[in-house]
Amino acid sequence: MTWPTPIDWIPAGGIRILDQTVLPDEEHYCDLHSVEAVAEAIRSLRVRGAPLIGIAGAMGVALAAQLAAAANEKKTMVKAVDDARDVLGRTRPTAVNLRWALDRVGHIAHAAPGDAHAVAEAVRAEAQLIWDEDRQMCRRIGEAGLPLVPDGATVLTHCNAGALATGGMGTALAPIYAAHAAGRRVSVVADETRPLLQGSRLTAWELTAAGIPCTVIVDGMAASRLRRGDIACVLVGADRIAANGDVANKIGTYAVALAARTHGVPTYVAAPRSTFDFACPDGAAIPIEERSADELRCFAGRTTAAPSAAVWNPAFDVTPAELITGYLTDAGLLTRSRLSELAPQAH
Amino acid sequence: MTWPTPIDWIPAGGIRILDQTVLPDEEHYCDLHSVEAVAEAIRSLRVRGAPLIGIAGAMGVALAAQLAAAANEKKTMVKAVDDARDVLGRTRPTAVNLRWALDRVGHIAHAAPGDAHAVAEAVRAEAQLIWDEDRQMCRRIGEAGLPLVPDGATVLTHCNAGALATGGMGTALAPIYAAHAAGRRVSVVADETRPLLQGSRLTAWELTAAGIPCTVIVDGMAASRLRRGDIACVLVGADRIAANGDVANKIGTYAVALAARTHGVPTYVAAPRSTFDFACPDGAAIPIEERSADELRCFAGRTTAAPSAAVWNPAFDVTPAELITGYLTDAGLLTRSRLSELAPQAH
Repeated sequence: MTWPTPIDWIPAGGIRILDQTVLPDEEHYCDLHSVEAVAEAIRSLRVRGAPLIGIAGAMGVALAAQLAAAANEKKTMVKAVDDARDVLGRTRPTAVNLRWALDRVGHIAHAAPGDAHAVAEAVRAEAQLIWDEDRQMCRRIGEAGLPLVPDGATVLTHCNAGALATGGMGTALAPIYAAHAAGRRVSVVADETRPLLQGSRLTAWELTAAGIPCTVIVDGMAASRLRRGDIACVLVGADRIAANGDVANKIGTYAVALAARTHGVPTYVAAPRSTFDFACPDGAAIPIEERSADELRCFAGRTTAAPSAAVWNPAFDVTPAELITGYLTDAGLLTRSRLSELAPQAH
Repeated sequence: MTWPTPIDWIPAGGIRILDQTVLPDEEHYCDLHSVEAVAEAIRSLRVRGAPLIGIAGAMGVALAAQLAAAANEKKTMVKAVDDARDVLGRTRPTAVNLRWALDRVGHIAHAAPGDAHAVAEAVRAEAQLIWDEDRQMCRRIGEAGLPLVPDGATVLTHCNAGALATGGMGTALAPIYAAHAAGRRVSVVADETRPLLQGSRLTAWELTAAGIPCTVIVDGMAASRLRRGDIACVLVGADRIAANGDVANKIGTYAVALAARTHGVPTYVAAPRSTFDFACPDGAAIPIEERSADELRCFAGRTTAAPSAAVWNPAFDVTPAELITGYLTDAGLLTRSRLSELAPQAH
């Protein structure tokens, strides 16, 4: 089974991304040749999904290092890396993976021995390692989640936490891909996920391309669908998970988790350990990005909200830990009480 | 204070409606000169809102009676009335007001004395009476709801149960208009209400036109907004209310009511007595209209869901009575235990 490749190196230099804003109408790739182009792609959601923007950020820093290394001046190059981390770090505030990835490549740039070219090569290798690790984490999440998706199961998901959101087979969708690969008949109900329709445009696209049946609903239908009794579990991704287990994820996740609890359907949050932020005590401490009102005001050139009305457009909400049955991580399926096992050890 | 007029008689004959599918971009009126045109307008939601489609249905029957009366053949005319009731009754299955209004004008057509012209005039007078009564019911709902909307209150609503949905000042929005008219500073948070955006297009349009501030959110944001603690109450309309108090209303209402309950915010359902169906024991007995998949598949010519995915598109959901704090009716604000007071008395 193969998945779409939402990001890749261009052999001659630069980064190629699948422009997720025009899917499913167009499968269009953009070539990015500057840090600013990478930042724009992240800000505009051409590249999105917490793990993937971590990878994209690290690759963007590697691009900056490579461009600056041409002058063969190590100090200039390290400065270029720090500037790139700064620009890329400000693109999106909620996903913690981005900061985590930028810190990793930044540390390499400061610590790696050798000349500017050697350091640039080390930064690029670290970005590649972040990507490779993410692919492995996705695979482990898929394996850990297999018991949640038995033969015949229908899973409800919100937004896109699939191959298009990661460096591998996804987080929330990984167990579904794994179950499908194991020969189980599985299907997915996907919330369309307003305002940007990552569920109906992206999740439905990548699942059906892999041969997995998917039914699209509007976000307001999830509660009715959960009442019907044919949903095995809710599986969603996360943009940041606080130390107490509260989860920031795409706006609308909280309502789905509330409805799932009401109808006795378990909710699992799937995320690699890079999504856990143990410096963040709880959901209230997670910064929530507010995006442009235009996302609600118009669509495809058509007015979708009365122009005289105000708009409130938070991109994420916080689902409290008590609504989450388990956390599906690369270290296995954990309950809230075991999340501290993922915390980095103090030295 | 004035409200938009979503329907009216054309003095020379026929019915004029405000086409609600193109608001807020265009304030376009359609002239309807046949029962089929009225049926199409109801099916396509050019005219929508449970009370308003009752009025539109009755006016459509009056139009049929008037057209058939030209032949001055009473039997032909009564047959035309029954045919019109049949066609119009099949347009939308969930709102009970439509059936109720069609029964009222049908009864008049069968019972009224005089020739074809006299009967047609009686049918038209009954349709006008249904409209006038609805306007009065809206006004009484507004008055009964005034205590729910104190000065400074913000109300959250879903879909459109305003002037555009009724023959008067609306149902759920009536207390807001009444509070505004009483000089109170009130504001509204409106769920956009996918898939057809009646909240962001219609509710936001009519409220801001009346000078009432309105903030649009996507449906998935309601739970987060209710958590913020600045919502005085949730006020929604209804398409049918069963004998036990279960409420069929626009898809997404149930999720809002669940979130409101979680955060201690009261949920009130506003509806005239024509919306109560005492023949329906509970929500499970209410037929739920499923609409075309195209409502989710495309918008303004742009693909909004992967074409290879299936779509589930129920237009309504059922909110169980236990989530509803009170029923705001033309007979006042009632608790569930007092709903039976609205039941028609057996003869």
